[in-house]
Amino acid sequence: MRNIKLKIAYDGSRYYGWQRLKDNDQTIQGKLESVISEMVQSHIEIIGSGRTDAGVHATGQITNFHTDSKMTIEEMHHYINRYLPQDIVVKEMVQASERFHSRYHVKSKKYTYYVWNHFTHSPFHRKYSYHLPEELDVPLMKEAAEKFIGTHDFIGFSSLKKTKKSTIRTIDELSISSQDYLMGFSFVGDGFLYNMIRIIMGSLVEIGLHEKELSHIDKVLEKNVRSKAGITMPPQGLFLEEVYY
Amino acid sequence: MRNIKLKIAYDGSRYYGWQRLKDNDQTIQGKLESVISEMVQSHIEIIGSGRTDAGVHATGQITNFHTDSKMTIEEMHHYINRYLPQDIVVKEMVQASERFHSRYHVKSKKYTYYVWNHFTHSPFHRKYSYHLPEELDVPLMKEAAEKFIGTHDFIGFSSLKKTKKSTIRTIDELSISSQDYLMGFSFVGDGFLYNMIRIIMGSLVEIGLHEKELSHIDKVLEKNVRSKAGITMPPQGLFLEEVYY
Repeated sequence: MRNIKLKIAYDGSRYYGWQRLKDNDQTIQGKLESVISEMVQSHIEIIGSGRTDAGVHATGQITNFHTDSKMTIEEMHHYINRYLPQDIVVKEMVQASERFHSRYHVKSKKYTYYVWNHFTHSPFHRKYSYHLPEELDVPLMKEAAEKFIGTHDFIGFSSLKKTKKSTIRTIDELSISSQDYLMGFSFVGDGFLYNMIRIIMGSLVEIGLHEKELSHIDKVLEKNVRSKAGITMPPQGLFLEEVYY
Repeated sequence: MRNIKLKIAYDGSRYYGWQRLKDNDQTIQGKLESVISEMVQSHIEIIGSGRTDAGVHATGQITNFHTDSKMTIEEMHHYINRYLPQDIVVKEMVQASERFHSRYHVKSKKYTYYVWNHFTHSPFHRKYSYHLPEELDVPLMKEAAEKFIGTHDFIGFSSLKKTKKSTIRTIDELSISSQDYLMGFSFVGDGFLYNMIRIIMGSLVEIGLHEKELSHIDKVLEKNVRSKAGITMPPQGLFLEEVYY
């Protein structure tokens, strides 16, 4: 069997997230599987590097599937992009080694959360960022961001209830950049719990607005309980940008 | 009467262009006029720096209107952005001198046409660029672009039929930049004839694809006749970026 690896971009606005749902094919995985299954005339299951939630976007989701189709990579690539909806695109496609698995072999991932920080919104970024009209204390947010770097139990910054699985994760990078009014918060880490980035973003924003103290982060990281007042930022600002193997 | 000047951004995708139409309010001017008229409780006419065609976008359209409303600029700005559709935004609003006229006083304008030049399209740029999968000869296009700079009779690069008005215009700048796969063709000039930028773009692309000779431009500029084979590029790549006074 050939093992085909794909790098995918999608505008998540119209979708219920990555993962296929039983009675609803309005998912990224569902759309890909139906086009690819039709192409090779057999039922194909697509493995993704991980799920993305409803409304979250990707510029570098990695997936793979197995097939014994005789089509060339180029023919497949052309076919898939032709029949996918326009808001999902296969950017790259290669034949991977037999053993490559896009979820099990992930070393780390990069996500960026975009905030449009200006009094007026932008018609071009409104679906791809969170609009925050108030002024932010960026130096203080940078200080806060540093507290997340390293290995911590992040259960307090997730939507998980009790779980037997480990909730310890390592964040290697959390950098803040800006271009005009668009701020990007880039997270690189070995894995992220459910809603973890959107909850960390909520805390960073509350600190940037002086609605919470810097010490809030230490408290939640130490006590491992989800802060009652913590906001979960909306999905449309979040992009899965890179998966590293 | 107060004279209010506005800087406006819009995503032109859903609109029939700038200019108000009699039986159709799906225009930028129409939307602005209805919100502003409602706000000041009298019929307001908005003057724009110029029209943009159906599907063309703007990040810096300049407009003005007159009113004797007692509202502050801030109150008006807030009201208008609240009631406009989300794809039209008033970025800036100031009280201008009594004599300021956003069309008559234009010195020059900057437009940029975006081309997404890669085998696969981008889900995030597809509404804001023209997708061209073939490889372009960029150095040759830069040579071609230089031929347009200066003062010429551009009737051959417009959709105008015979006209009594002057079709002589000056292009001060025509620069080509790229970031990843997104190419921007920026035009600065004292005015542009109907479809002029989209037709010039068509010629530049044909030259970049080696479908036309460089000398084609000289011929059209000299003979002042619209080339029979000339393409008009589609509107969604075009942005009105700046108006200079």
